[in-house]
Amino acid sequence: MQHFISLENLNIEVIRELIEDAISFKKRNAYPNLSNHYISNLFFENSTRTKLSFEMAEKKTGMEIIYFDAESSSIKKGETLYDTVKTLNSIGVECFVIRHWEDRFYENLISKFDVPIINAGDGCGDHPTQSLLDLITIQEEFGEFRDLNVVIVGDVVHSRVAHSDAKILQRLGANISFATPEFWRDSTMTMGRYTTIDEAIPKADVVMLLRNQNERHSQQYDEGNFLSLYGLTKERASNMKAHSIIMHPAPINRGVEIDEDLIESPKSRIFTQMTNGVFARISVLNYVFNS
Amino acid sequence: MQHFISLENLNIEVIRELIEDAISFKKRNAYPNLSNHYISNLFFENSTRTKLSFEMAEKKTGMEIIYFDAESSSIKKGETLYDTVKTLNSIGVECFVIRHWEDRFYENLISKFDVPIINAGDGCGDHPTQSLLDLITIQEEFGEFRDLNVVIVGDVVHSRVAHSDAKILQRLGANISFATPEFWRDSTMTMGRYTTIDEAIPKADVVMLLRNQNERHSQQYDEGNFLSLYGLTKERASNMKAHSIIMHPAPINRGVEIDEDLIESPKSRIFTQMTNGVFARISVLNYVFNS
Amino acid sequence: MQHFISLENLNIEVIRELIEDAISFKKRNAYPNLSNHYISNLFFENSTRTKLSFEMAEKKTGMEIIYFDAESSSIKKGETLYDTVKTLNSIGVECFVIRHWEDRFYENLISKFDVPIINAGDGCGDHPTQSLLDLITIQEEFGEFRDLNVVIVGDVVHSRVAHSDAKILQRLGANISFATPEFWRDSTMTMGRYTTIDEAIPKADVVMLLRNQNERHSQQYDEGNFLSLYGLTKERASNMKAHSIIMHPAPINRGVEIDEDLIESPKSRIFTQMTNGVFARISVLNYVFNS
Repeated sequence: MQHFISLENLNIEVIRELIEDAISFKKRNAYPNLSNHYISNLFFENSTRTKLSFEMAEKKTGMEIIYFDAESSSIKKGETLYDTVKTLNSIGVECFVIRHWEDRFYENLISKFDVPIINAGDGCGDHPTQSLLDLITIQEEFGEFRDLNVVIVGDVVHSRVAHSDAKILQRLGANISFATPEFWRDSTMTMGRYTTIDEAIPKADVVMLLRNQNERHSQQYDEGNFLSLYGLTKERASNMKAHSIIMHPAPINRGVEIDEDLIESPKSRIFTQMTNGVFARISVLNYVFNS
Repeated sequence: MQHFISLENLNIEVIRELIEDAISFKKRNAYPNLSNHYISNLFFENSTRTKLSFEMAEKKTGMEIIYFDAESSSIKKGETLYDTVKTLNSIGVECFVIRHWEDRFYENLISKFDVPIINAGDGCGDHPTQSLLDLITIQEEFGEFRDLNVVIVGDVVHSRVAHSDAKILQRLGANISFATPEFWRDSTMTMGRYTTIDEAIPKADVVMLLRNQNERHSQQYDEGNFLSLYGLTKERASNMKAHSIIMHPAPINRGVEIDEDLIESPKSRIFTQMTNGVFARISVLNYVFNS
Repeated sequence: MQHFISLENLNIEVIRELIEDAISFKKRNAYPNLSNHYISNLFFENSTRTKLSFEMAEKKTGMEIIYFDAESSSIKKGETLYDTVKTLNSIGVECFVIRHWEDRFYENLISKFDVPIINAGDGCGDHPTQSLLDLITIQEEFGEFRDLNVVIVGDVVHSRVAHSDAKILQRLGANISFATPEFWRDSTMTMGRYTTIDEAIPKADVVMLLRNQNERHSQQYDEGNFLSLYGLTKERASNMKAHSIIMHPAPINRGVEIDEDLIESPKSRIFTQMTNGVFARISVLNYVFNS
């Protein structure tokens, strides 16, 4: 049994195995059998995409889902997360996928429960299955990470995925740079280097766009001019290398981070990322139960 | 693979087959096997009855349901229906049952997706599985449609089912008339003829009541006197022919469209209609995947 | 086929069998097979714990769950409980687990439906599966009920479980006493005798705490001093007999009815009760279908 909290605390060999397993499950259309295991998805923030991706992974591995609805739960009456997990565990739930608004919500859970806790996003912290699906998408495309040029574009300071992806990609040998507006630079980020989107695009193998997290912005910015100043326009995309790809974690602010016409263009892997998310989660379920 | 959007654009032979398949599934208590297919029911308007009827049909055919909750979805944050379907399809959902407030919501979906889209009600437009269950109920009762007298009673102008049923029943050879208050006549309806409920009842084989769609009425009407003036009272019901039947799409405004005592009377097929709804949907699922 | 409404109207031999079956299912980790039965859980009051416990029991017996959401149902538009059950039954649901705010909501259902109705809590009335899980927990611990000293502590007057448990335990041969603040005594309760918590604790085999049902209190009480005056403090717990146990129906008001440190102490059976709740419900499902 393992918890799955963050990619950063994992040995690089474990990460490589998680990636390779996911690609193998996808290719062979065959999955580990986890039938007779009961799982619950506790989403205290709405995220239909992530939640349903986990549910698909759980169904493909034959798991039994006990559907938990945060809206109608006793959490609203002041029950703690610990009590909720303890209750469901007493009822027979053997694995918890949790998304919660609190940073590091998992800390007092992982020390107290001997059933797997899977982090599906903690506050402004980590979102490791999202990072994993990004890695899977890159490895599937290029076969390896060494010396790949990855430019991370946009709202770096508010993105949990940007921080996590950058660190892991660097450990895996990629070259990271950030093309971000001055007002969204993250002064605490020591790795990689800052550049401009126009400088970065022609050299990049992977153009990794971020979502503008408007709900976390304390100051307004000029959304109307964002695309032309900082986003992926068709003109900029025309300077990409022949084999290079576009990624975005979704949901997309169409016409803000990226020109609408590029979303389903041949270079886009945005929907491939969603597809790979299911295999990432199958790989994680396999990991927490079978390693 | 087929979409299922409306009965009106289907060949009459296809409609007959949908009806006969449904009756056969019901009689034999045996269903097509659609296991390993993933389906999602996207209901942007509440309709417990229709939604759970589809879910029952999906379970009886062995399908895997990915539960989508419109309330907590990104649709609320402005995501388009197209993006939602594209996301779920990327995750692995292979069929979509959709109810949406927008007329013809399906138009830009059916041209872009090669997985079945099933219309579970579009705005004031169509509700083809409801029409189909009505046809099944009539065929099950009378064996055929030719020369049957069907009177459609009540709120014709606001009823998507009334329009659809009337057209199909006429194509199938039935005689249609409408017994509706003057203020709810539909001036655009060219088929059938208008009559009064008192004139129509003694000749009718099928008395097809409609629900007063109070939520769509811009003007008040006298609900207290509706039953005696325009509804199916016990006195009127006593003038029905021996073999004739009462239908209603539910939910019923008890004591308004119909006297409460008639709802579960021997002539009523109201709950048979609900039962047949499941077989109608099984027939549709079979059609979209296997034809 | 049986309904399951209350323990009080059941023969004592049936109750013993329900308890013994549950313990046997738990020990053998083997369950009755109810696959191909369709069930729906209709919860018109939120109770995540009870609802998910039923769902776990239903899944362990292989039943198919048709998920009903009271929030989005036509009940909100004025549909009666009878109509909802009639509709779902017409669709093919063959068993109903119902929690409803109305006392004796089940009365007009059990006379009209020939599929099992299971009471999961009616208003201020009964909650028989909660009583059953309490009995299971006591029998599992002590092997029998005869001459056991059970003290019921706290908010007796508002607790549906206290009344029901007390009656059944007395029929099974236990000695019941109540340690309750004067302002929460139930003057209509004729059985058992009133005592103080300090007097009762040293003699008790079972210390059965109740939850302070703050949502049902018309008058405020001094919550800050409740634990020291009327609750289970560590000091009081130190006077318990070596083999005696602590029970609580949950959710717990931590630090009010019981000192936080006692909740997971060796004497506590609070989470065992939750675990046993699933087996209680499996036993009830077996009973309603197979007796």
